[in-house]
Amino acid sequence: MSSQQYHDLKVSIDKHVALIVISRPKAHNCFHTRMRDELIRAYGELEADSHVRVIILTGDPAGKCFCAGADLSQTSFTTPAQGSNISEEDFREDGGKVALPILRSRKITIAAINGNAAGIGITMTLPMDLRFAWKDAKIVFPFLQRGIVPEATSTYQLPLLIGRSRAMAVLLQGTSFPASSPLLDGLFTKILDTKESVLPYALTVAHELSTNLSPTATAIMKSLVLNPKPTADEQHILESRAIFITTNGDGKEGVRSYLEKRPPQFGDYDTRSLPKWFKGKL
Amino acid sequence: MSSQQYHDLKVSIDKHVALIVISRPKAHNCFHTRMRDELIRAYGELEADSHVRVIILTGDPAGKCFCAGADLSQTSFTTPAQGSNISEEDFREDGGKVALPILRSRKITIAAINGNAAGIGITMTLPMDLRFAWKDAKIVFPFLQRGIVPEATSTYQLPLLIGRSRAMAVLLQGTSFPASSPLLDGLFTKILDTKESVLPYALTVAHELSTNLSPTATAIMKSLVLNPKPTADEQHILESRAIFITTNGDGKEGVRSYLEKRPPQFGDYDTRSLPKWFKGKL
Amino acid sequence: MSSQQYHDLKVSIDKHVALIVISRPKAHNCFHTRMRDELIRAYGELEADSHVRVIILTGDPAGKCFCAGADLSQTSFTTPAQGSNISEEDFREDGGKVALPILRSRKITIAAINGNAAGIGITMTLPMDLRFAWKDAKIVFPFLQRGIVPEATSTYQLPLLIGRSRAMAVLLQGTSFPASSPLLDGLFTKILDTKESVLPYALTVAHELSTNLSPTATAIMKSLVLNPKPTADEQHILESRAIFITTNGDGKEGVRSYLEKRPPQFGDYDTRSLPKWFKGKL
Repeated sequence: MSSQQYHDLKVSIDKHVALIVISRPKAHNCFHTRMRDELIRAYGELEADSHVRVIILTGDPAGKCFCAGADLSQTSFTTPAQGSNISEEDFREDGGKVALPILRSRKITIAAINGNAAGIGITMTLPMDLRFAWKDAKIVFPFLQRGIVPEATSTYQLPLLIGRSRAMAVLLQGTSFPASSPLLDGLFTKILDTKESVLPYALTVAHELSTNLSPTATAIMKSLVLNPKPTADEQHILESRAIFITTNGDGKEGVRSYLEKRPPQFGDYDTRSLPKWFKGKL
Repeated sequence: MSSQQYHDLKVSIDKHVALIVISRPKAHNCFHTRMRDELIRAYGELEADSHVRVIILTGDPAGKCFCAGADLSQTSFTTPAQGSNISEEDFREDGGKVALPILRSRKITIAAINGNAAGIGITMTLPMDLRFAWKDAKIVFPFLQRGIVPEATSTYQLPLLIGRSRAMAVLLQGTSFPASSPLLDGLFTKILDTKESVLPYALTVAHELSTNLSPTATAIMKSLVLNPKPTADEQHILESRAIFITTNGDGKEGVRSYLEKRPPQFGDYDTRSLPKWFKGKL
Repeated sequence: MSSQQYHDLKVSIDKHVALIVISRPKAHNCFHTRMRDELIRAYGELEADSHVRVIILTGDPAGKCFCAGADLSQTSFTTPAQGSNISEEDFREDGGKVALPILRSRKITIAAINGNAAGIGITMTLPMDLRFAWKDAKIVFPFLQRGIVPEATSTYQLPLLIGRSRAMAVLLQGTSFPASSPLLDGLFTKILDTKESVLPYALTVAHELSTNLSPTATAIMKSLVLNPKPTADEQHILESRAIFITTNGDGKEGVRSYLEKRPPQFGDYDTRSLPKWFKGKL
């Protein structure tokens, strides 16, 4: 880990599982410029640590929310060009700056939504692989009500995640839904009854997946799912190369451990061992 | 509104909400050539009215259906080329002629399905943003049983709306489902218990959305969702431009009203104020 | 049918409905090289038989599974290149070799999942049109646990079928779900209470569809759904051509039979009668 301190996050690693806690307890864990920079730095450092296989994001319980959205007292969110010469063409909004590195992660990324998630608080979880949520957490897409458009690539992710019918309804009617609302069906991998049980559940799943799944096969699978080819025939060609590589790699231990009825022992994911055509894609 | 009368529709406007009622009570609100022309005209006129922010389509209760499909007594539906010299290449089927302008609408489009919806009666609602339905309304995709293919771009819309697995099942087995069928899960934003409650519910939602949502941000969001770029990185560039525009526009009133704990006052949507690259897309 | 015998399958035809039974009762109906070749041959022969309109795949009840996956005792699955000079570029994995012809089928393809389906046992059903499953059938995506990536174009199909959110969760957490798990919601057209009822239900549906649906319209609809154009406007052009063709073909009998309140009598699907631009696509 970097020697630099984090102010708005708490970052820790236990075995193969990294935990990022959003921690601005006096401000409902609201997102602001410094948190943006720290999230980018944290995901970057954890991505580079080959021992880390799973990254969980959760909210500090003292903040009483997972993340209550962008801090509207910070004018940089509401008037991006004010006081600067940046043009419409060059401006890049904050949500996407955080969402895109998460989407490109080769690790398993998990959101443990243990309280309300509003605006960027929910949109930054959309590029993650798994979302676990407290059933009564308020999920809020308040963009059109604030006069702005949804961000963090959510207009791209949400229809892919749960279909265009639900996505359009959520973005239009998104003032506030509980996580268990039928309108959000499919968005959350698991709905938990209490806010206190969300992180323990996420940690249990994370430790299981981090020891049972091949990190290399996981990274390649993610690339295949997130960057599908236009046709099944073309996807078959990529999957075939991936099968070739993995059956000659971690697949040997995978089958051996299965036949010997013991847990598999997969080596850490090695960036250099991944095929060039995958590196090029992500 | 146009001075011309409508024969098969009743069109009215209340504040920002327009209501189109399909009204052929003696023919189960069946679709035919004149209704096609009137629907195209009504959506066109309402689109051009910058004061209109939401357009609802419903069925005249006297027709006992939302819309029972194409009027099969009209031969133009069943043999499009008969008696004409139109070629396969030049022919354009009626469903798409109605569906495409609805899909391109910058307003919020709602279907209030207060009775059975068959054939074009259901497919013309697929490009709409929200669909509210009576739980026992019979939803019928009868195309393959009549020897023809589904139309109104439904072979494109349905898999995007609810996923390819459900879409294929509905198109193959679509003789008749109640709106509440699990096979249609996700297609309807809200299922209502009685047919009489569908339109009042739709009107309530429409009036809420028409006053609480920025018409400009809504139009841009719809463009982003309905015309997604091939990758999240490219979508981020468009969303960034849209955030730049809206935070410097309606976003100011959006944040101000939020901080002042009062409803926002958004101006009518102005076509000329929209970015060129959005106009070009839609 | 071919005069050649099948060893791992039982293939039969009743009226318009073909039934393929996976039958390796002593090996849990596991998939191996010879079964792969026989499945490709069976689907190919049935596809060429214009009298066949529906193809059902099920598992021999004596095998106690629908299909328990690839036979790991056969080394060709786990080390595809071992003992051969085949390169990564030229290697094509077995799952896709079976899945792609099924995806290209112009018939209605059905999986009657009457027991556990693991690995290739479930992935080869993803290109099918309808999946009926016993509620307690264990559905297993065990790829990452075995150190390899999912195959049979499943990284392409699964997100399209049920959305990317559920697909990613299933591929990561896919050790074992019952078919009735909410995580798999939408994947199965119908969930049956007993394993014994799955095939009879599938046969009933298959015979209904094979007599009530136009085989030509069905083939064209499948092409439109499985090969969508990039925009709704372009899809409208293809749908219009398809409406032109079918209203001048089977649509005549479709409407006539409807008005006469009798079942339609559609002719067998004739490959030569299909439009060139569809043949070119599939």
